[in-house]
Amino acid sequence: MRLHPVIMAGGSGTRFWPLSRKKRPKQFLALATERPLITETAERLGSLARRQDLLIVCGRLHAASARRLVKGISAKNVIVEPAARNTAPAIGLAALHVFRRDPQGVMLVLPSDHHVADVAGFQRALAQAAEIARGGALVTLGIRPTRPETGYGYLRLGEPLAGQARRVAAFVEKPDLATAERYLQSGEYLWNGGIFVFRADRILDELHRHMPELAAGLDTIGISLGKQNAARVLARTFPQLPSVSIDYGVMEKAQDIAVVKGDFGWSDVGSFAALPEVRPQDARGNVVSGSGAVLIDCSDCVVVTAGRPLALVGLKEMVAVDSGDAVLVLPRGRNQDVREVVAALSKDPKLSRYL
Amino acid sequence: MRLHPVIMAGGSGTRFWPLSRKKRPKQFLALATERPLITETAERLGSLARRQDLLIVCGRLHAASARRLVKGISAKNVIVEPAARNTAPAIGLAALHVFRRDPQGVMLVLPSDHHVADVAGFQRALAQAAEIARGGALVTLGIRPTRPETGYGYLRLGEPLAGQARRVAAFVEKPDLATAERYLQSGEYLWNGGIFVFRADRILDELHRHMPELAAGLDTIGISLGKQNAARVLARTFPQLPSVSIDYGVMEKAQDIAVVKGDFGWSDVGSFAALPEVRPQDARGNVVSGSGAVLIDCSDCVVVTAGRPLALVGLKEMVAVDSGDAVLVLPRGRNQDVREVVAALSKDPKLSRYL
Repeated sequence: MRLHPVIMAGGSGTRFWPLSRKKRPKQFLALATERPLITETAERLGSLARRQDLLIVCGRLHAASARRLVKGISAKNVIVEPAARNTAPAIGLAALHVFRRDPQGVMLVLPSDHHVADVAGFQRALAQAAEIARGGALVTLGIRPTRPETGYGYLRLGEPLAGQARRVAAFVEKPDLATAERYLQSGEYLWNGGIFVFRADRILDELHRHMPELAAGLDTIGISLGKQNAARVLARTFPQLPSVSIDYGVMEKAQDIAVVKGDFGWSDVGSFAALPEVRPQDARGNVVSGSGAVLIDCSDCVVVTAGRPLALVGLKEMVAVDSGDAVLVLPRGRNQDVREVVAALSKDPKLSRYL
Repeated sequence: MRLHPVIMAGGSGTRFWPLSRKKRPKQFLALATERPLITETAERLGSLARRQDLLIVCGRLHAASARRLVKGISAKNVIVEPAARNTAPAIGLAALHVFRRDPQGVMLVLPSDHHVADVAGFQRALAQAAEIARGGALVTLGIRPTRPETGYGYLRLGEPLAGQARRVAAFVEKPDLATAERYLQSGEYLWNGGIFVFRADRILDELHRHMPELAAGLDTIGISLGKQNAARVLARTFPQLPSVSIDYGVMEKAQDIAVVKGDFGWSDVGSFAALPEVRPQDARGNVVSGSGAVLIDCSDCVVVTAGRPLALVGLKEMVAVDSGDAVLVLPRGRNQDVREVVAALSKDPKLSRYL
């Protein structure tokens, strides 16, 4: 069985401004370790797949960075989306490429911007999922919750399947805190980490069943692959595809989704405030990334420096980030307000170049 | 009557780090307006004195900056102290120069790093003080207190003298808050702003009377002035002079100090937290200097930028300063802790170059 990892690197969020920029979104930042998240994502696959079978899907602006940061990847394995159309079209496009190379090939669909602490456990879970997927099932990795998180979607566990897999009874939306606590207590819910394992032919089948408009466009693109007009067909067709997530478009509707439970120190590194999940803390709960930080009487702060001095005195539960050409300071609990900063910058002709 | 302003620019404090550096102390920063404090100090003299009679006393490291920032000053009017020895030796040295040019000349001793909002009122007070000083008195400007400030020394008013001047009954040290409130209520105390007016011959007399060791050194230097060995004598003698303030060395001991009351919007711009005294505030009490600041839901903050984005969210009563190559964030009430930051930087071989 040949495994075809597909690293989904189309994201372009703003929650890590000023570190993240239009040309340098989150997946290209060294947030959890000293290496960029996308580099870690490729490296943690170990010997599960050959490097020549690894695909990256990303936007035009990011293809060069992706090639630079993932060692040994060839240009033809970087699939450039002509426009950002969410995960269903991106996965469909990747499936066309995998199918053409290896009709029964099993895809490992991997977000490019998450962190995994226990790499061996992660590989074991993926291998188990691939074994199940080989038989035709759509498989997802469900992550055992460690706290009543309201920021993630959940999977409700269904009946047992072969091995230690379970059927997914339902995909459920982000819960409120009381519901999240109930989920945590029950043991019957797992986090949906957006990691999927399935055969290329099977996901294309399911796209035909549940997203016929998308599938028709993919057919057009698929026919062109390897031909002279491929780039032109892609550029014309892809931007017209419906912008829908694979979760909403397929997973929530398909029958017989299997879930393999994982417990491998996963984090989606959702914001600066989440860095304490993945980075060591000092005795006062501060997380410091980079050199040049001077902390006097600070506690429970998240600090990212650019080498030059970033001096903080008497701060509690704050985020302070110096990207080298811009600085952000805000309370840990208000990380979502980075949006407002980005909105203000985008309205200012002198400052919008910092986005 | 020729007036000889002497701008005292020997200061080298650290309270404005990261804006201030060893080579760029507070007086060279544009803190209160868009021009450096030393530039404003020279310009606010208006027509009180001729530019060729203006002297600046400063350290070797700062002579070039002083010349650059005070328009029209000649090299021979920048008196370089071979070592920092506090204000009594600096004023004595300046008095030697003034005495040599104009034996009955009246000196206006002016700190280089204060702000004055009402320039006309300031000039009136200085002119009145000079008129009194012409008769031989040592005169100080006393500043009418506007709040129970515990960070300044005070003057207690004595009996009335000619004009609207009063005798100084006593120089008093920085009070505690209760005492400062009593001072403020009584109307009998003024702030000591370190502004002195006296004839050069008279301050040299008083230095002979109260600081004979200092005066002996000054005599040695005075004899050398204009001779070939002047620089050598200064370099050898000045660093040996006792390091004493003019307040402690002369003013607190001399008889018959006169005080002219001033009410001209004075501030010593003592720290970043003092910028709201001298700079306009927005509707939420924020003071912002420079471009690039993005404030979301901030109040009563002091923000200094370096042109690039400095984004602050949800901060109250904080100071945030970006110097372009270093950043400081601390609560307004903890401005004195900049010292600790500077101490930490000085211990770090990689960061000490930012001092």
